Amino acid sequence: MQNGSLRVIPLGGMGGIGKNCNVIETDDDILIVDVGIQFPSEEMLGVDVVIPDFQYLEERRDKIRGIVITHGHEDHIGGLPYLLERVSAPIYAPPLALGLIERKLNAATLKNTSLRTITDGQGIVLGPFNITPFHVNHSIPDSLGLAIRTPAGLIVHSGDFKIDHTPLEGRPSDMSAMARLSNEGVVLLMSDSTNSESPGYTPSESQLRDVFDQVFSRAKGRIIVATFASLLSRVQLVIETAAKYGRKIAVAGRSMEQNVETAEKLGYIRFPADTRAQISQINNLPDDQVVIMATGSQGEPNSALARMAAGRFRYAKIREGDTVILSATAIPGNETAIFRNIDNLFRRGAQVVYGRQAGLHVSGHAAQEELKMMLNLLRPTYFIPLHGAYRMLHQHARLAHEMGMPQENIFVMDNGDVLELTPEGARLGEPVPAEGILVDGSLVGDVGRSLLRDRMSLAQDGIVVVKVTINEQTGTILHQPEIISHGFVYVPEAQELLEAGQEAISGVIESYQGNGAGYEPEQVSMLIERRLGNFFYNETRRRPVVVAVVSTQ
Amino acid sequence: MQNGSLRVIPLGGMGGIGKNCNVIETDDDILIVDVGIQFPSEEMLGVDVVIPDFQYLEERRDKIRGIVITHGHEDHIGGLPYLLERVSAPIYAPPLALGLIERKLNAATLKNTSLRTITDGQGIVLGPFNITPFHVNHSIPDSLGLAIRTPAGLIVHSGDFKIDHTPLEGRPSDMSAMARLSNEGVVLLMSDSTNSESPGYTPSESQLRDVFDQVFSRAKGRIIVATFASLLSRVQLVIETAAKYGRKIAVAGRSMEQNVETAEKLGYIRFPADTRAQISQINNLPDDQVVIMATGSQGEPNSALARMAAGRFRYAKIREGDTVILSATAIPGNETAIFRNIDNLFRRGAQVVYGRQAGLHVSGHAAQEELKMMLNLLRPTYFIPLHGAYRMLHQHARLAHEMGMPQENIFVMDNGDVLELTPEGARLGEPVPAEGILVDGSLVGDVGRSLLRDRMSLAQDGIVVVKVTINEQTGTILHQPEIISHGFVYVPEAQELLEAGQEAISGVIESYQGNGAGYEPEQVSMLIERRLGNFFYNETRRRPVVVAVVSTQ
Repeated sequence: MQNGSLRVIPLGGMGGIGKNCNVIETDDDILIVDVGIQFPSEEMLGVDVVIPDFQYLEERRDKIRGIVITHGHEDHIGGLPYLLERVSAPIYAPPLALGLIERKLNAATLKNTSLRTITDGQGIVLGPFNITPFHVNHSIPDSLGLAIRTPAGLIVHSGDFKIDHTPLEGRPSDMSAMARLSNEGVVLLMSDSTNSESPGYTPSESQLRDVFDQVFSRAKGRIIVATFASLLSRVQLVIETAAKYGRKIAVAGRSMEQNVETAEKLGYIRFPADTRAQISQINNLPDDQVVIMATGSQGEPNSALARMAAGRFRYAKIREGDTVILSATAIPGNETAIFRNIDNLFRRGAQVVYGRQAGLHVSGHAAQEELKMMLNLLRPTYFIPLHGAYRMLHQHARLAHEMGMPQENIFVMDNGDVLELTPEGARLGEPVPAEGILVDGSLVGDVGRSLLRDRMSLAQDGIVVVKVTINEQTGTILHQPEIISHGFVYVPEAQELLEAGQEAISGVIESYQGNGAGYEPEQVSMLIERRLGNFFYNETRRRPVVVAVVSTQ
Repeated sequence: MQNGSLRVIPLGGMGGIGKNCNVIETDDDILIVDVGIQFPSEEMLGVDVVIPDFQYLEERRDKIRGIVITHGHEDHIGGLPYLLERVSAPIYAPPLALGLIERKLNAATLKNTSLRTITDGQGIVLGPFNITPFHVNHSIPDSLGLAIRTPAGLIVHSGDFKIDHTPLEGRPSDMSAMARLSNEGVVLLMSDSTNSESPGYTPSESQLRDVFDQVFSRAKGRIIVATFASLLSRVQLVIETAAKYGRKIAVAGRSMEQNVETAEKLGYIRFPADTRAQISQINNLPDDQVVIMATGSQGEPNSALARMAAGRFRYAKIREGDTVILSATAIPGNETAIFRNIDNLFRRGAQVVYGRQAGLHVSGHAAQEELKMMLNLLRPTYFIPLHGAYRMLHQHARLAHEMGMPQENIFVMDNGDVLELTPEGARLGEPVPAEGILVDGSLVGDVGRSLLRDRMSLAQDGIVVVKVTINEQTGTILHQPEIISHGFVYVPEAQELLEAGQEAISGVIESYQGNGAGYEPEQVSMLIERRLGNFFYNETRRRPVVVAVVSTQ
């Protein structure tokens, strides 16, 4: 690379929501910003999480000077355990994120990894990168944007942010720090696009104070609040409202318990005296003194709320008189599960407060006017809309263009695209591998298109396994063929069909004359698989996978 | 049943959206209102459609006097082919619905079924039921509510409705007919709950006229509009706006083509002179004279729009300069597919107009104030909120209660619940079977919980088929065990794992000493299935289905 040149590579976070991971690279040094995971979409059958492709980093492991984390959400920290199995690098994160990261890493990784706290205003130096974090508002306390001074100039990474003039957790996003950066001259802005489809401003978190107050003031029985486990300022708001109405707060659901524990230990959540209850104790309290903070706002079938709604949660089953507050938006793809859960809550007689109209949730991401504010404050030469599905990146780019930024200075990138910043300008280089890597169970990366296609066809019409034994010389069937069906037809009702299938197999073998040199089991099974597949399709209009196991004797 | 008594049974439409089907029954006679289908939810793997359970009707086939259809949407007419295979009855429907029904029925059914037109204001008599339809607004022309005079009094069925004072297709819902019914005294109202979660009024369809006009006036290239194939008033609006801007309209997608053809033939859609184009001709027209009405507003992967977005549609591929209008709401569960489609459209350089803010869609169902209007106009003694997920029925019931109706007169029912209306009052009786029947391929009803569970586990972790041949007496393995894997692991990379699996099988068989009387293949396969399942789980944290095919020689 040329002197004063730089490569900026989003390894994740583009074209889909999640697994944020950005690489900033000079000739000899690499800085990584965030290492997140993404939750699988519906067609990723059996997949647990999606992580960025770390191959590019692994091949350049010696160049890595450090990993800087902007905040403690899964889509920014969840990939660390996977990356740290393959490269080692110090992690720099704000205290709360660091607390959450510590819980994730296993003992061996923890021992080998240096974890260091960063705070806004305090610069750190990593090789040629001089990084000064600045405070931003988001839906978890302790969120940072980053001013990254590089050989190619000042890069600003917005982190996940909104501009909240009355946040619950203290200070508004640090506009004056941004203004100072602007004076210095920003060569590149990389900015959060998650909410770029929403016009106007994202409402302040404190707007929820009144709404929660109203709902609490009217509730006669227990109150159950479901929200994201990581939405810690929301948790604090619920605690304060509960305290005002003389209620105690119990926490239900593992991720919520862990996050609250970590946040409380680090001082990001405070329970007023005598307001904390254990979930095992709530049945000893009068209903109108109970609040349960629960996981399950996305309808996850094993979450605390879903189990309460189904009567499967040990300490609390939803019943008449309960008020359930869903304080979250639906992540696309979860709607059906969420609505099913709401139906179940109503069926059990609860009062359920949910949906946009209820006004019980605000986004943690900047809407269009805030995004413009960021662009206007920083006046960067180049711009990468970061973090979002393609349409969000596109909308964010459009905003920048409407504000007068030349189209050729705006880069709507895909994962693995490379922006080369040189003293002469910026342009896209050769992309690097960055397709999402699927994790299923303990195996990383073996689930790809072909395996998913197999799973999809099994899911649609099931499988039929056929056992046939024939005489190697004559081809005579030695035992009645056996058919084992999984997910294809309901066997007790399909005896006739399966028997006809057995006959079809016999027919296939009888009509097959061998290849002159006896009966090759492999040829016979291919033949059976094709013919039986057609037979079942004609009979049922279903296409099960057919596996024929042919033995010869 | 007592004289003047009646049973009202929703066989579908409750607790989920779709497959509307209501039964009104006296001692000797049955009237059926609507026979719809429901589209499967995500967890119904491989299922094509869901239909009501017709067993109750089949067992009482001689009592059925007729089927009355309120309008031509799939969730009101789609189940007819299935019902008419099992019972025969005349169908009474408004002309457009009848046209759409005719397309659905096969020749044999058509021949044996009497199809008769009904229109608002014109009464028909079916046994003891005297039915007068009245006009309502909905998102398809020719929608009806029903006044049903029965031995137990006047029942009003709202149909799917909204109150649109400026509908595109002519008259507002017939409020004066409803007022007259009210004078007669309504014993029971059954009313559409689909939009009962929305406060206020549903906007008029004509509100869209200006919005479409604006988008059309700004578009420089081709315009592609995607909406529901059944949303025929929307289609008409697009035609008129296209004509105003000197554009010709082509239709893409089979269901859209069929619906437009039927509606045009019956006069429900009118193309101004010289505005109709064939889809095969559009490439001969200048871009700014083209409008394509397409299916695919829900992101269906084989719809016209999705194929255009993927470059797989023969006559039109999306390109820079195109304006794509999504004029529909997301049906819950479709969000991911819809968003993926939008991303693809943007990637190809189209301008995409979508989402609530764009204001390019209005609902066809009454919101809360309209629902209250209906309740207030009719002042029924009893009330069944109809047609919706449980939360919608619940909200609709709450509205009625807030308006002063006693709780005990409101019946939030599940499919198969029976409301018994007698001169003394109304109460719930013994429910009848009415679980949704799943249709997959040409088989109806065999897909149930157990088959779906099988499919789900295949979808999650795939299947492993093992072939083992052993000596019947000694248990010696005669050939190296074979392992065939589908959807479990990516085989090229998993050779080692599968070989270890083969060894595990050998181990199992060696350590098994038989049951004293030789080696039972069934016992050996059970053993292998269990042990190999555990082995694979320990190695991969995946739980494939394991099928062991054991032969003895």
